Amino acid sequence: MLDGKATFHEDNWKRDEGGGGRTRVISHGNVFEKGGVNFSEVHGPVSDLMKKQLKMDGKEFYATGVSIVLHPHHPFVPIMHMNVRYFQLDDTDYWFGGGIDMTPHYVNPASAGLFHKGLKDVCDKYHPEFYTKFKVWADDYFFIPHRNETRGVGGIFYDHQRATEKLSKEGFLQFALDLGDVFAKLYTEQYELGSKMEYTDKNVQWRNLRRGRYVEFNLVNDRGTQFGLKTGGRIESILMSLPETASWVYDYHPTPNSEEEKTLGVLQKNIDWLSEY
Amino acid sequence: MLDGKATFHEDNWKRDEGGGGRTRVISHGNVFEKGGVNFSEVHGPVSDLMKKQLKMDGKEFYATGVSIVLHPHHPFVPIMHMNVRYFQLDDTDYWFGGGIDMTPHYVNPASAGLFHKGLKDVCDKYHPEFYTKFKVWADDYFFIPHRNETRGVGGIFYDHQRATEKLSKEGFLQFALDLGDVFAKLYTEQYELGSKMEYTDKNVQWRNLRRGRYVEFNLVNDRGTQFGLKTGGRIESILMSLPETASWVYDYHPTPNSEEEKTLGVLQKNIDWLSEY
Repeated sequence: MLDGKATFHEDNWKRDEGGGGRTRVISHGNVFEKGGVNFSEVHGPVSDLMKKQLKMDGKEFYATGVSIVLHPHHPFVPIMHMNVRYFQLDDTDYWFGGGIDMTPHYVNPASAGLFHKGLKDVCDKYHPEFYTKFKVWADDYFFIPHRNETRGVGGIFYDHQRATEKLSKEGFLQFALDLGDVFAKLYTEQYELGSKMEYTDKNVQWRNLRRGRYVEFNLVNDRGTQFGLKTGGRIESILMSLPETASWVYDYHPTPNSEEEKTLGVLQKNIDWLSEY
Repeated sequence: MLDGKATFHEDNWKRDEGGGGRTRVISHGNVFEKGGVNFSEVHGPVSDLMKKQLKMDGKEFYATGVSIVLHPHHPFVPIMHMNVRYFQLDDTDYWFGGGIDMTPHYVNPASAGLFHKGLKDVCDKYHPEFYTKFKVWADDYFFIPHRNETRGVGGIFYDHQRATEKLSKEGFLQFALDLGDVFAKLYTEQYELGSKMEYTDKNVQWRNLRRGRYVEFNLVNDRGTQFGLKTGGRIESILMSLPETASWVYDYHPTPNSEEEKTLGVLQKNIDWLSEY
């Protein structure tokens, strides 16, 4: 484990209608101010709310997934998020979803390039079009319309994936497991790059403002969070994704040509981060 | 002005479709870490989104309102919020809305009673049933379903109010103006009561956790904020209501019988705060 000091707090929870999960949260570590891992495996009758929200029909569902969110102390080390999930409806339908995305407080294009190269390498093992397709999907998903900003430098995002001639159901499962493996490698790389830099109180203030945007995305725009809040999921597991501290300053504009302004300038869709690698 | 040190930052803004507003924000004052006043007066064609969201029909609308949110430094001084608004649809319909509510980081029942008594006194000048009716409405509106908590100790909230035999249109306007007047008095009273208390770092941490809940309510539950975000309002004016700093700690439970636990215990609807006066 990257963090030598922190220990995990673990909670196991059950769902009244069937299934349960485990939430493990780290706090005040050497590296992480807050980080968490959610595992869940739930099943039961398909509710009216699920039919409406998920636009699907069926009797019984089974859903399992793992989510990780890491909020480091260091302003030059990024927030990183992973989710992989599997959903099954009766014996008639199923799909996979998931992805990994990165939210640097300060965007370093070369580091973003390295991150995207790592994701492309995993994608390419499974399908030649996955990276290109899922990279665009992440740009669209991790976007904050009311700010006209992406949450960070994106990554990959996919949903409703079923087996095809090119990739079997087992292949999609292996892809999800591979993402879990590569997540630790990708985060360690980013940590090594960012954590060597010196930082000031000003950098910490900016980190907290960027975390404020992370809160805005998760509470206003993230469909997974919205669904969890509306369907009475375990609230502390859903909101473990929020940072320990976040900040909002009215109408803050960074100094022209500052690192902060450069970061704002690249929080856009459709940047070819691979070209920075 | 209660705050001797802070100065207001003022922005005037225009709306492309008609009208505009003024946002004034105070920050890092002696009393307030952050506080703001929004005034807006907008008009124009009724959009499809407005028809859908506001469940109304018409050609042209005129809307004006004032909002105030105050976030003090001192953990024993409450957050307070006021909004008064007027909406007109062609020459055929109009309504008033508004209210004042209080969110103490630590609930002191006697202080909550004083606050509610002040609101009742204003309400009683206009209609014998206003306080009772609008108090229940505030309990219902300022509620965070996913936490099963009220935002604070409530206050009064009203919407879609039209002239009746008992109160004319001019009467409703005067009621709104009176709320603006009483807001300063109510806040000063609360400040005098709370600011004499000594506080510790632990109290500040709790204040930040309660501010986290304030952020959750405003971003997830507040219909005014949701409407503003969806309809492309001026984002910095809409989100000036957020505190400068907020915090989330995973699954935090206060020590049994602590002041923090007592506060959590009274963040409920249907408490007769007047009886504490």
